[in-house]
Amino acid sequence: MILDHDTIVAPATAPGGAIAVVRVSGSEAFVLCDRIFRGRTPLAAAAGNTVHYGRILDGERVVDDVLATVFRAPYSYTGEDSVEISCHGSSYIVSEILRLLIAAGGRMAQPGEFTIRAYLAGKLDLSQAEAVADLIASSNRAAHALATNQMRGEYSEELEGLRDQLLNLTSLLELELDFSEEDVEFADRRALRETMERIGAEIDRLRGSFALGNAIKQGVAVAIVGAPNVGKSTLLNRLLNEDRAMVSEIAGTTRDVIEERANIGGVLFRFLDTAGIRATEDRLERMGIDRTMESIRRAQVVIRLIDAQAQGDSAAPALEFELRPDQRLLTIYNKLDAAPEGFRLPEGAIGISAKRGQGIDALCEALREAVDTEGLYHGDAVVSNSRHYEALTAARESLDRALAGMDEGLPADLLSEEIRPVIRHLGEITGRGAIAPDEVLENIFSKFCIGK
Amino acid sequence: MILDHDTIVAPATAPGGAIAVVRVSGSEAFVLCDRIFRGRTPLAAAAGNTVHYGRILDGERVVDDVLATVFRAPYSYTGEDSVEISCHGSSYIVSEILRLLIAAGGRMAQPGEFTIRAYLAGKLDLSQAEAVADLIASSNRAAHALATNQMRGEYSEELEGLRDQLLNLTSLLELELDFSEEDVEFADRRALRETMERIGAEIDRLRGSFALGNAIKQGVAVAIVGAPNVGKSTLLNRLLNEDRAMVSEIAGTTRDVIEERANIGGVLFRFLDTAGIRATEDRLERMGIDRTMESIRRAQVVIRLIDAQAQGDSAAPALEFELRPDQRLLTIYNKLDAAPEGFRLPEGAIGISAKRGQGIDALCEALREAVDTEGLYHGDAVVSNSRHYEALTAARESLDRALAGMDEGLPADLLSEEIRPVIRHLGEITGRGAIAPDEVLENIFSKFCIGK
Repeated sequence: MILDHDTIVAPATAPGGAIAVVRVSGSEAFVLCDRIFRGRTPLAAAAGNTVHYGRILDGERVVDDVLATVFRAPYSYTGEDSVEISCHGSSYIVSEILRLLIAAGGRMAQPGEFTIRAYLAGKLDLSQAEAVADLIASSNRAAHALATNQMRGEYSEELEGLRDQLLNLTSLLELELDFSEEDVEFADRRALRETMERIGAEIDRLRGSFALGNAIKQGVAVAIVGAPNVGKSTLLNRLLNEDRAMVSEIAGTTRDVIEERANIGGVLFRFLDTAGIRATEDRLERMGIDRTMESIRRAQVVIRLIDAQAQGDSAAPALEFELRPDQRLLTIYNKLDAAPEGFRLPEGAIGISAKRGQGIDALCEALREAVDTEGLYHGDAVVSNSRHYEALTAARESLDRALAGMDEGLPADLLSEEIRPVIRHLGEITGRGAIAPDEVLENIFSKFCIGK
Repeated sequence: MILDHDTIVAPATAPGGAIAVVRVSGSEAFVLCDRIFRGRTPLAAAAGNTVHYGRILDGERVVDDVLATVFRAPYSYTGEDSVEISCHGSSYIVSEILRLLIAAGGRMAQPGEFTIRAYLAGKLDLSQAEAVADLIASSNRAAHALATNQMRGEYSEELEGLRDQLLNLTSLLELELDFSEEDVEFADRRALRETMERIGAEIDRLRGSFALGNAIKQGVAVAIVGAPNVGKSTLLNRLLNEDRAMVSEIAGTTRDVIEERANIGGVLFRFLDTAGIRATEDRLERMGIDRTMESIRRAQVVIRLIDAQAQGDSAAPALEFELRPDQRLLTIYNKLDAAPEGFRLPEGAIGISAKRGQGIDALCEALREAVDTEGLYHGDAVVSNSRHYEALTAARESLDRALAGMDEGLPADLLSEEIRPVIRHLGEITGRGAIAPDEVLENIFSKFCIGK
């Protein structure tokens, strides 16, 4: 991780579009661009937030007609002087502009380096910077809301609020030390305990939100299970096709649809393929069923598919597996179009015909309801980053030690010492209070794409 | 092809980058964007060529923090009021912004529709518009120079110069008609013939440049031929690897390297795989050799590879094929590192060791010299578009008929009639003089990408 003051350059758009954008940031941004850009006036003389038509020149040779946008420090993404060069979207032109900028004194930016600079300039905290990467990667409404909430900083504010309360507590405790001969307690121990427990509850709430946050970010795992030939593959194709149809409404905007993932009601679902479950002596089939059981363990939602045509035992089969309290079960009767006369749907079950597309809306609605995104769309702080989850867990453990210490009647100075790690762990998430160590920055920003 | 005045919207960048750009163009561009954009001031009140930070809102919901660049007619690409929205590069965000703009009254643009509008506004002629698409697709220096020259309009000016001369001739001829009773010749027939022949020669020069232009645009076809085991595949791998190494100097900018194509000295070469040539009775091998002969016919450059280790006849083999005058032959001795003592390279041949990389620079230099790109880099008009080539050919045929008519002593009015098609065919290339018919526009712009 390089933390210098070089002027950095990078492509900010993916190859293949009508236009491409090259980013330049650093104290030499204008000088450097003026070496290769000829417009009506030099960019160094231009006002911030203005766009200038001109040419990129390699000596006498015209590389491209471009638009150069000037951002003056501190009013830019990085907080530094910056230029965005918008050129024709040819890979050759982009590489030529980068080559010329580097020859003029720039350096190729590392992944995430523009955002690191924004962090170091105090434009974003660490959790907001991480949200930028999540936002770019977001492909559905829920993941977008998750990243947006985090980027807006409501989440950071909540954490800062907790940190501030703890900082207050420790300063009160430390005040007692100055008056230690007088044996006063500025920090009423009962009120102190209440505050710490309230903070603990809030940390727990955030930690508890990680299951939802992680599911939304990675996609909600759904296992479709049932006896052989109940129509699992037909249902899967149906769900994927519904999504395809939705996705293709606006042509040219979404590509790379990954098999067996579908965006339903704004949430990404990952459908886990499973073999049919039945009692068998066949070793290979047994292995398939073992994998099904593993899929069920990994799933947040289990769709139990039953053949509405079936009679007798198989018409109302016993559940072949156990679910955890955090897992949601949807019981679905398929082949409703071919069900025997007088077939009655058990209460709570949904009837569909995967083949004919009947009842699929109701199933999608049930899937969507199985993931409670309402709070998310109203700005609730939800943890989706495992780094944050680990810091919250460490904070909770430190808090527990502090509470135990209090029970043991620790003196104010030692109690204050026990609370400090809680403050530190919460601070790690936002990176406020102290600049994060290099290895933390490396870990966070190396996952960014180039040009961000 | 829709030629209306709707306000059109489209993504202008490829999916997958750090940022994405959405284009909006038309008389309602500002009104439409102000329905979903909240900045410090409405875009409708903003000066041209300024950038504004703000949020894209879906009702209360924040879709993204964006930068909106305002272009006021006629100072925009299309000549219309335009906005470019630069957002985070998420496919979800781009599709949401497009959805909101369409809901606000915009229409999704068709491929090339922004450029059609630029053409209709007189910002570009047809050949310049076509050059925009070529420029975006350009992946090497020569193809870039080709597109740049065409886009700069030197080529259009040359064609317009020819058209103007012909228009002058016809007006002189038509003037004679007004004085037909007096039997005067304003257009001296000898001077007229000279002018027409000069124009014919210029058309021939342009037509002749098509071989070079087309080769540069599609890649220069090179057949590597030789007896079995002379090292054809080793040489091919060596040439491809040299290119790979060059391409990867700037990471993240070039993708999709196509097998058996290599950028050498700024020119794209397409290496045609060939089987070894030798006398054989084997039917399958014979078929392979037939394909080799076909490759030789298609090639602009033939590399004849000879084993420097070989003795006797095979050390200086007769040429097994004939070349056309427009084809270039390079005689290369391979395995120079294992050549017998006293081996002397025949004059004009190049010695290499494909295995060790020896002599490859000289070979690349010879390949580059085989394609005369010098004029190109100094702005020479070169035809690279088959539509233009066809129009030039039709113009030449019409001109020949006019010349023949002159020999037959055609009266001024009929001669003028013979010259008109020449003017029309030359005009088709730039589309100046008259708006091109819909089917021509359709043919040209449907090959564009969305957002251009």
